Amino acid sequence: MEEIEQTSSKQLRSLGQNGIVQPLLTDLYQITMAYAYWKSGKTKDHAVFDLFFRKNPFQGEFTIFGGLEECLKFLEKFHYSASDIEYLKETLPPSIESDFYNFLNTVSAEDVRLYAIPEGSIAFPRVPLMRIEGPLIIVQLLETTLLTLVNYASLMSTNAARYRMAAGNMKLFEFGLRRAQGPDGGLSASKYSYIGGFDGTSNVLAGKLFNIPVKGTHAHAYITSFNGFSELRNTCLEPKGGGPQRDLLQLALGHRSNLVPTFSVVESEASDGELAAFISFAIAFPDGFMTLVDTYDVKRYSCSSNKLFNVTPNTQSHNEYRFNLIPMPNTKRGQNNCSGSGLLNFCAVALALNDLGYRAIGIRLDSGDLAYLSNVARQFFYEISEKYNLPWFANLTIMASNDINEETILSLNEQGHKINCFGIGTHLVTCQRQPSLGGVYKLVELNSQPRIKLSQDVGKVTMPGRKDAYRLYGDSGHALVDLIQRSVEPPPELNQKVLCRHPFEESKRAYVIPTRVEKLLTLYWENGKIVQELPNLQQIKERVKQSLKTLRPDIKRTLNPTPYKVAVSDKLYTFLHELWLKSAPIGELS
Amino acid sequence: MEEIEQTSSKQLRSLGQNGIVQPLLTDLYQITMAYAYWKSGKTKDHAVFDLFFRKNPFQGEFTIFGGLEECLKFLEKFHYSASDIEYLKETLPPSIESDFYNFLNTVSAEDVRLYAIPEGSIAFPRVPLMRIEGPLIIVQLLETTLLTLVNYASLMSTNAARYRMAAGNMKLFEFGLRRAQGPDGGLSASKYSYIGGFDGTSNVLAGKLFNIPVKGTHAHAYITSFNGFSELRNTCLEPKGGGPQRDLLQLALGHRSNLVPTFSVVESEASDGELAAFISFAIAFPDGFMTLVDTYDVKRYSCSSNKLFNVTPNTQSHNEYRFNLIPMPNTKRGQNNCSGSGLLNFCAVALALNDLGYRAIGIRLDSGDLAYLSNVARQFFYEISEKYNLPWFANLTIMASNDINEETILSLNEQGHKINCFGIGTHLVTCQRQPSLGGVYKLVELNSQPRIKLSQDVGKVTMPGRKDAYRLYGDSGHALVDLIQRSVEPPPELNQKVLCRHPFEESKRAYVIPTRVEKLLTLYWENGKIVQELPNLQQIKERVKQSLKTLRPDIKRTLNPTPYKVAVSDKLYTFLHELWLKSAPIGELS
Repeated sequence: MEEIEQTSSKQLRSLGQNGIVQPLLTDLYQITMAYAYWKSGKTKDHAVFDLFFRKNPFQGEFTIFGGLEECLKFLEKFHYSASDIEYLKETLPPSIESDFYNFLNTVSAEDVRLYAIPEGSIAFPRVPLMRIEGPLIIVQLLETTLLTLVNYASLMSTNAARYRMAAGNMKLFEFGLRRAQGPDGGLSASKYSYIGGFDGTSNVLAGKLFNIPVKGTHAHAYITSFNGFSELRNTCLEPKGGGPQRDLLQLALGHRSNLVPTFSVVESEASDGELAAFISFAIAFPDGFMTLVDTYDVKRYSCSSNKLFNVTPNTQSHNEYRFNLIPMPNTKRGQNNCSGSGLLNFCAVALALNDLGYRAIGIRLDSGDLAYLSNVARQFFYEISEKYNLPWFANLTIMASNDINEETILSLNEQGHKINCFGIGTHLVTCQRQPSLGGVYKLVELNSQPRIKLSQDVGKVTMPGRKDAYRLYGDSGHALVDLIQRSVEPPPELNQKVLCRHPFEESKRAYVIPTRVEKLLTLYWENGKIVQELPNLQQIKERVKQSLKTLRPDIKRTLNPTPYKVAVSDKLYTFLHELWLKSAPIGELS
Repeated sequence: MEEIEQTSSKQLRSLGQNGIVQPLLTDLYQITMAYAYWKSGKTKDHAVFDLFFRKNPFQGEFTIFGGLEECLKFLEKFHYSASDIEYLKETLPPSIESDFYNFLNTVSAEDVRLYAIPEGSIAFPRVPLMRIEGPLIIVQLLETTLLTLVNYASLMSTNAARYRMAAGNMKLFEFGLRRAQGPDGGLSASKYSYIGGFDGTSNVLAGKLFNIPVKGTHAHAYITSFNGFSELRNTCLEPKGGGPQRDLLQLALGHRSNLVPTFSVVESEASDGELAAFISFAIAFPDGFMTLVDTYDVKRYSCSSNKLFNVTPNTQSHNEYRFNLIPMPNTKRGQNNCSGSGLLNFCAVALALNDLGYRAIGIRLDSGDLAYLSNVARQFFYEISEKYNLPWFANLTIMASNDINEETILSLNEQGHKINCFGIGTHLVTCQRQPSLGGVYKLVELNSQPRIKLSQDVGKVTMPGRKDAYRLYGDSGHALVDLIQRSVEPPPELNQKVLCRHPFEESKRAYVIPTRVEKLLTLYWENGKIVQELPNLQQIKERVKQSLKTLRPDIKRTLNPTPYKVAVSDKLYTFLHELWLKSAPIGELS
């Protein structure tokens, strides 16, 4: 498989952006608001917006921030084309003054400043992921596109990071393109699952554009496209060390006969079509031999009655198969000779390849009881490794790829399994447990005056004013709290008591003495340029890993995680509540 | 990357396709299989694949087929670029023969034939949405991209059609871009929700590319960006019929004072910032005046004690607000003057606009108890329409847009509401109830020999061989059954008994006498060209509507819908089961 997943030796390709990311990829109301602001003479108004989310996804207590680079690339090319303006003229009411279109024509992100936390960092509710400052109209026009670029990227990175934690050191590959929400849903999923901790993807375009390792062998169709040996136009392969070609099929058939006692099978039950498919695949990829073994049947038993009726929970689904598969009662013995045993055929070909100096990679299980089947397979690999004195055979890759999600991985861990690689599709890329991150973009300051958005739901009240955020660390190196302050306040000092307050519950306060203080928001965009050197994907991936290490294990666990604390400074608390009182309605009791 | 960046919006407009839809947008295993097939000399093998799904989404009993046009456009441009081939050379094992890349270089969809059911048709499990025939290698290489283009498109169209059925004649707008799965998730959602029955979208790029109506007014930020009247640099507006400008603010203030008795409010509680925002928006869009009314408070009560404590379930959340909003006990009367009443301010401005000959559009509710608030608003509109003798005022639009899903609409219908328009985001575009359609692509015939894929799960056994499908209609005009046959069979005849069999349950059979027979699969692609005139979006939308009319209501209902029947011909039944017996393993009892 190393051969197949081999990546470019070239330098990182300069990352581009999906062509549909453009200023019109926005909600119409951004443009109608722009006109109303323009018409009201608010072109010089200076606004500060916060981009943040209110709740961690997946019932977890952390989020990974993704999408920053995409946002910056969007700013770089933020201007309306002639055809955009032509379309808007057709679409907006005819009463709109034509000078507005001249204004739109000049719009760019040059006067915008964007602060953000580093891409790949852990992030928490209410703490701004980005603070965007600049002319009200321009900053408002950016809203939808920035949210689109951040919401799914962060959701996906977080989902992948959770799978990574569940899977420990197992290899993880993203296989979700066909089930993703739109072509770009697939492409973004590949990119951000890699950032979140996956080892690669099946998506070739993601490999090409983002230099992510790509992985893949074959589908069931490949196996079913072979009926028997007669379809093999070539069965010979040159040994790895050179020399005359040898007949791989004959070698494999010899091994298959020898393996029959080990597998306790009747050889005639092994599918010749499957073996033919394996042989042809091995000849094409002698150094990358990895096959699906469940097209016909992973492992066939001889049905000695004690095995047949000795049904344990783990083996049940496997044994039932024998009887469910043929619902009709008139089955005649000997009627068919293409029943299969993927494991037997795989081992036969792997041993034949070994005769020629090649090492097989392993198998993929795409159905059935994965814990059970992986144990069966590993046991055979072990027995063969002993019998043939081939230590590497015991460590062949066992990949599983059927409907895997975070819970499946945790459950497999509990059951005990011998899988060392997962291929994960639908549930990963669609983020089954929560298909969207509710990131929002809120005006917090206008012309140096704070702005607040009240709500029936206290949790939805916004934090007014321009703010900064700090992460305070304790002795253990773990993050203790994220502290949001007014930007005019001095940063928290090292080794000094810092009062951290709950933003809404008056009595919830705590002193924290930080041994390290990390300023979370950094300037990334100013004067029309990216002003930080951006990390590559590999570096962002590494940041996710390091960032998660600063989080206590109980905050990261799947079941009932401890909430991480997000606090406000005493000054911000007072500022918020005074403004709230000033803005909130008072009733009259009469 | 260069290919993507060069996809200008103009090109997109003519191609109608996201630039990332290209041959490398696929799983790597398609390409490794292609090499293995090529290496095995299978370049001339002729394959037939079916693209179908096994289960309707959303616990429903129908699916809308979407994505066909995108698939055909993909076929039109299906060839590997020089940079694609360069990337593959770097990525695949060095042992791959260089002639394979020469072969890839010549690959196109010219020898492929694609049959499909018309886009926008209702579709059912197991009935092929598409049948793709041609050289095995080529047809296999198309798999992932076709699935990506069909799965989400069909899921989204189906979801939208379900919302449409739930919403009856109400207007429906898709507002989901910011919460979609990637930029294209948003763009595809806009397109296919329009096809499925929505009236438009907020997504401007979707409007531009697909000629879909776009809709939008303003966000809460627009309201909070105004603090008071002093910020209005202009308050005058020319009457619709011409003549000297008049002061809209003064007119509105006059109306607001007059409306106070109707609304039973204290005028000082109405937010002046909100009114200022409404005035500026009305001046910008005098013919399109529609506003959010819940930035501060939709409707403020004077707190006569009987109203305050007369809490009914419908009003509970609304009344609680008054006390939850200010958690601190030290509130002083008269301390603030910017509490708001969106309805009061809206009506004041709407009446002022009316003085100048303009008709307001309506309001948007984005929080709170939507059924209750819509009834309150409609009641005021009605009272004002009576009081001012303005019949149209009673029919102002009430749009709701807070976290709407299919269940919310059904529940609002039960509660009784006065909403006539919904703006729907997250749940629509992410297809909350089921984020992916499990469409699959299966080899069913190779070199005129049928192929079958067995499975532990009977429902996953594929239907072998090249097949056609027919929809049989009864006297009432309703579809009775979809019948799958072998392609070699003659089509079912009108007014003749047709034996329809359950594909797996031997005893389930029925005779159907069709009064109309519709052949479902039509040839769309042959000799490298689209061979049908393709409908535009409007026509596809119309097909969805007409197609759904052919389904009995009990099949379409949300709760416990009746399954629609999909049957096989007697010949296909026998063919399937004989092949199954031949292919399935037989155990040995010893």
